[in-house]
Amino acid sequence: MPRFRMSVEYDGTPYVGWQRQDNGRSVQGALEAAVLSLTGEKVGIRGAGRTDSGVHAVGQVTHVDLARNWQPYKLRNALNAHLAMAGDAVSVLDVAAVTEDFDARFSAIRRHYLYRIISRKSRLALEHKRAWWVSKGLDHERMHAAAQMLVGRHDFTTFRSVHCQANSPVRTLDRLDVTRTGDLIEIRATAQSFLHNQIRSFAGTLKLAGEGAMTPDDVRAALEARDRKACGPVAPPEGLYFMQVDYPDVIPPRQPRTGAAEGGEV
Amino acid sequence: MPRFRMSVEYDGTPYVGWQRQDNGRSVQGALEAAVLSLTGEKVGIRGAGRTDSGVHAVGQVTHVDLARNWQPYKLRNALNAHLAMAGDAVSVLDVAAVTEDFDARFSAIRRHYLYRIISRKSRLALEHKRAWWVSKGLDHERMHAAAQMLVGRHDFTTFRSVHCQANSPVRTLDRLDVTRTGDLIEIRATAQSFLHNQIRSFAGTLKLAGEGAMTPDDVRAALEARDRKACGPVAPPEGLYFMQVDYPDVIPPRQPRTGAAEGGEV
Repeated sequence: MPRFRMSVEYDGTPYVGWQRQDNGRSVQGALEAAVLSLTGEKVGIRGAGRTDSGVHAVGQVTHVDLARNWQPYKLRNALNAHLAMAGDAVSVLDVAAVTEDFDARFSAIRRHYLYRIISRKSRLALEHKRAWWVSKGLDHERMHAAAQMLVGRHDFTTFRSVHCQANSPVRTLDRLDVTRTGDLIEIRATAQSFLHNQIRSFAGTLKLAGEGAMTPDDVRAALEARDRKACGPVAPPEGLYFMQVDYPDVIPPRQPRTGAAEGGEV
Repeated sequence: MPRFRMSVEYDGTPYVGWQRQDNGRSVQGALEAAVLSLTGEKVGIRGAGRTDSGVHAVGQVTHVDLARNWQPYKLRNALNAHLAMAGDAVSVLDVAAVTEDFDARFSAIRRHYLYRIISRKSRLALEHKRAWWVSKGLDHERMHAAAQMLVGRHDFTTFRSVHCQANSPVRTLDRLDVTRTGDLIEIRATAQSFLHNQIRSFAGTLKLAGEGAMTPDDVRAALEARDRKACGPVAPPEGLYFMQVDYPDVIPPRQPRTGAAEGGEV
């Protein structure tokens, strides 16, 4: 069956999370419903990463197998039309035909996340549900210094949810940078893969470092404790954005079907 | 009575606009309700500019007269607590005590607005109701060139709503710049004052210039026609942000009451 890679943006606020669940609408479910309403096919759509309820995506990557050999831009436009009709806060940014070697989850070699904190005295109006509001002042340079204690290959037991299903707590964190622009503090994290709640656990702990409650050495000690209780309070989901997934260049996109009539697909 | 200047941020989506109206909740009404619930005073809060339903503000400026001589930061915190309890999408950013010479509307010497367009093929998820989605490609340099035809002192009859209540259609437009960052096109407008729907009329017309339907000379001719029918379709409210208001430096803030006990006000 023809396989398609799809980049997806969503506002995580109204969803129970990426993954299909019994207790409410998921992003995965919204996309699968759009395919069903477009083609009549009951498909399973795989995502590069699961995101919790309230977590956003700018560049989640998915794949889906469909019966027909769609022209990618027509599939994108048609799915977006069905998502709009359903009132979903999901947008298909980009579609590419790929070979069946491509798997959105297992082919991924790097994942990039952003965690946004707005540090100011006043509550958020325009950024409500788009960032973590912290009313205390934060020293972002101290946060960055603390973050560097976490970069590298470590046992991240301290920074993963007790519900995490990964076999091993060992991960290699490629990057954890903290920068500031005005009252916006951005934490950028890159790794091949992350544990459940790992970045929100980092953000909650780095916030303690930023307000002076932990030193960078305390953060290192928390990592070395390999103890969930050494972690700061987990930061809320609304600050987290799944930004980008990298794949090896060695998987060439399949060529679209030649000779397909323009405008005849949708 | 003590007078306070307040800078206010709001998400315009759930409101009928800045101004109190019979047909729904307004931003002005939300702020006045917060004061009523805080102090029991039925006040009128004046804004530097009226914004339509769906238009946002990052730096609307208001003033209010209150019976008590509040410490500014305590007034800010207390109003924000009441706005949060009411579930309003409004935040008081900053409060300053001012003399009675200060009038948020009439003392203003310059107003700054931003209009945001996102030009891309896919619908908006994260920026839904925060920008105007335009699926056509836009040439921002051509939009900027067209915008320069509008800068200066002109009769802006073409670019004002038929419902505009201003006595004169003549205004001096100090700045109308169009810039691009990725798929985000930003139009920044500055003037002492604007006519009703003036910036949304500019944005709708500049979008036509950007897609090639109007040349910069066509935009100049539309201005010179002094005819509402020469204007492009008015751009939607969700792209518009009231950014900042400038006041002369000659109005010094009143000093907060000396000797007030910390923590005793709220």
